[in-house]
Amino acid sequence: MLQERSYKRGNDELQQTKLESCDPTDDTPNSEYITPNGDIDDDDSAFNFDEGEHVPFEKKFDYTEEEMLQKSRQFYEEMNDRRSVRFFSNRPVPLRVIENIIRTAGTGPSGAHTEPWTFSVVRDQAMKEQIREIIEAEEKVNYEKRMGNKWLNDLKAIGTTYKKPYLSVCSTLIVIFKQVYSFDERGQRKTHYYHEISTAISVGLMLAAIQKAGLVTCTTTPMNAGPRLRKILGRESYEKVLLLLPVGYASENATVPDFKRKSLEDIMDLHD
Amino acid sequence: MLQERSYKRGNDELQQTKLESCDPTDDTPNSEYITPNGDIDDDDSAFNFDEGEHVPFEKKFDYTEEEMLQKSRQFYEEMNDRRSVRFFSNRPVPLRVIENIIRTAGTGPSGAHTEPWTFSVVRDQAMKEQIREIIEAEEKVNYEKRMGNKWLNDLKAIGTTYKKPYLSVCSTLIVIFKQVYSFDERGQRKTHYYHEISTAISVGLMLAAIQKAGLVTCTTTPMNAGPRLRKILGRESYEKVLLLLPVGYASENATVPDFKRKSLEDIMDLHD
Repeated sequence: MLQERSYKRGNDELQQTKLESCDPTDDTPNSEYITPNGDIDDDDSAFNFDEGEHVPFEKKFDYTEEEMLQKSRQFYEEMNDRRSVRFFSNRPVPLRVIENIIRTAGTGPSGAHTEPWTFSVVRDQAMKEQIREIIEAEEKVNYEKRMGNKWLNDLKAIGTTYKKPYLSVCSTLIVIFKQVYSFDERGQRKTHYYHEISTAISVGLMLAAIQKAGLVTCTTTPMNAGPRLRKILGRESYEKVLLLLPVGYASENATVPDFKRKSLEDIMDLHD
Repeated sequence: MLQERSYKRGNDELQQTKLESCDPTDDTPNSEYITPNGDIDDDDSAFNFDEGEHVPFEKKFDYTEEEMLQKSRQFYEEMNDRRSVRFFSNRPVPLRVIENIIRTAGTGPSGAHTEPWTFSVVRDQAMKEQIREIIEAEEKVNYEKRMGNKWLNDLKAIGTTYKKPYLSVCSTLIVIFKQVYSFDERGQRKTHYYHEISTAISVGLMLAAIQKAGLVTCTTTPMNAGPRLRKILGRESYEKVLLLLPVGYASENATVPDFKRKSLEDIMDLHD
């Protein structure tokens, strides 16, 4: 039933199969076997592949070990300087920089190369204020009615409130939508396997791009405000708000919590 | 009930609230209101904050517009060169480079700064072969029994099989676990809000780091193999396999599908 296409691969005797499937996983305790109803395969298209042949992979680099060490170390240090900042100045950010940041997010891998993301960029002041209003209204209800005791207790310790002034102060809001499905050229509904994981990975690339540009952001999840945000931004019903990133310059006196990151030993488990 | 802590913020009159809550969202059609049982808040700790004061944010850069444009453009181009590659040589990668890649992933933001990730690094040949065996065995069953007709049909077009030779050929496997919860110093169970989105974002940073080091990978999801992988890697029951990345050098004749990425216009929705 499944055809197995093998391609002649010159000297690569070890690898005879052209395209491997990259399949979902989610070994949550309450589901023994899982089929993917939305989140990553990989970059290479299950859906595009039949429309295009394989081409040689152009290797652009051949670093020495020293160069790899130096480059990987430097990138780590740049990323390690990143902090979530909630205190923004209203200094404008050039749109072309934001465009490069969005382009970078768009280079992420995705399940069956469906690229299941939409990035709404909001710079209009009235709209930023409207978004802030929606989010604060939902947050107020979240705090007062929807959160359980444990959660409220967890939040008590940090003194958060439903107020989010930075949403209307910062230069740019990026509202990130995951596309749960879409429609192909023939109007057929197209499944987006692993849309959530794929979109979250693209946000990782976006955070790196924001850092590279010398800007700051704070990764936020506007709980329960998704449907209203989707409507005022005019997005389709199959697009769901995943995250919202205020992007801009830190204010003069911005502060961040005095926390440390886990050490390499705490996060890496080596089998050498 | 909730205390609202306000801090004096010098000239920042617009922003009086010290820490904003960053809350989950998931406006899936079948749930009107959502509480987070695992996926991103943001970098700054709900749980750590009560243990540490805010400190000034050290701005390390103050780029001109031209510099921002140049830096953001260059980073985009570097990331745009990334492709998922499935054809690896067995050339070894220095462990110190892998360590920098893992460190970079560890700089990601996470819900309430729980850093809900474990990265198992497998370089032992016998263990790589064992992992390949587990994954291929599950994949065989996935193909033959678990996948629906639509999915099988989607895969038919691309000619994938259950075979994954690259898993034992490449230098290094990185198995990425999301920690669904954990335990604090007192042995109390600690909720990991947004663990899946947080971990996927960290993988975005990891992909950037792999690219920066001049190496290649392929983001894969070993469907249904999670529990067995977790066991042979000796991880805890609250750690769940999210993704698996083979990392190394592309083989001499590696190919990639001839696909294009969506354009900026296709992924960006501007409200200026």
